[in-house]
Amino acid sequence: MSTKLYENEYFYILKEESTIPWVKIFTQNPYKELSDCDEATREATLKAMVVVEKEMIAFYKPEKINIAMFGNYVPHVHIHVMARFKEDSHFPESMWGIKQRESNLHLANFEEFVTQMVEKLTL
Amino acid sequence: MSTKLYENEYFYILKEESTIPWVKIFTQNPYKELSDCDEATREATLKAMVVVEKEMIAFYKPEKINIAMFGNYVPHVHIHVMARFKEDSHFPESMWGIKQRESNLHLANFEEFVTQMVEKLTL
Repeated sequence: MSTKLYENEYFYILKEESTIPWVKIFTQNPYKELSDCDEATREATLKAMVVVEKEMIAFYKPEKINIAMFGNYVPHVHIHVMARFKEDSHFPESMWGIKQRESNLHLANFEEFVTQMVEKLTL
Repeated sequence: MSTKLYENEYFYILKEESTIPWVKIFTQNPYKELSDCDEATREATLKAMVVVEKEMIAFYKPEKINIAMFGNYVPHVHIHVMARFKEDSHFPESMWGIKQRESNLHLANFEEFVTQMVEKLTL
């Protein structure tokens, strides 16, 4: 089961277990597509996506942020936000692509990142 | 070379050559990350993403819309918007995942879709 890192009336954020920093933002209501969301939910969720990206950049200084909304298996709007590094398992391929190497990352503490992220989300 | 389908002061839209309906929305300025964009550009680009999604759903009635922002090879903000179908080459995997079958799609005319999309983008 995924750990819930934060929630408010519009969305909740889960941790994806991975060798990279990776969170998923789910809308509270199980809308199928982003364009199905009521406007307040869509705005809050997309704003959170940018806040999470910004905090990942500030905290982890990654090579690149990757974002994805698929939902082919779970048709409930959720946004993957991932910090990518040159030494990670798949770079420059997407995390859904072919594995390039064994991950060799020495990352700062995820719980500390979460604390900072939640602080920014509640500003 | 990709065909330019539309542009305004904030972004331009290219066609991705694929067996599925797939477009890429690039910011006019080559920002690396979404959070690097000036606010007007980010708002216009994310709004366009939702408009394109909506029009893909209305026109193609896909199983699911997939959206992705990677930029590991091309660190210039661009949003992939894809219409996915049960019979497409990769479903339910992402288009960056393992191919599942030969694509067997009979899709409506892409140029007609573009006409509708541009109409909605300029509303």
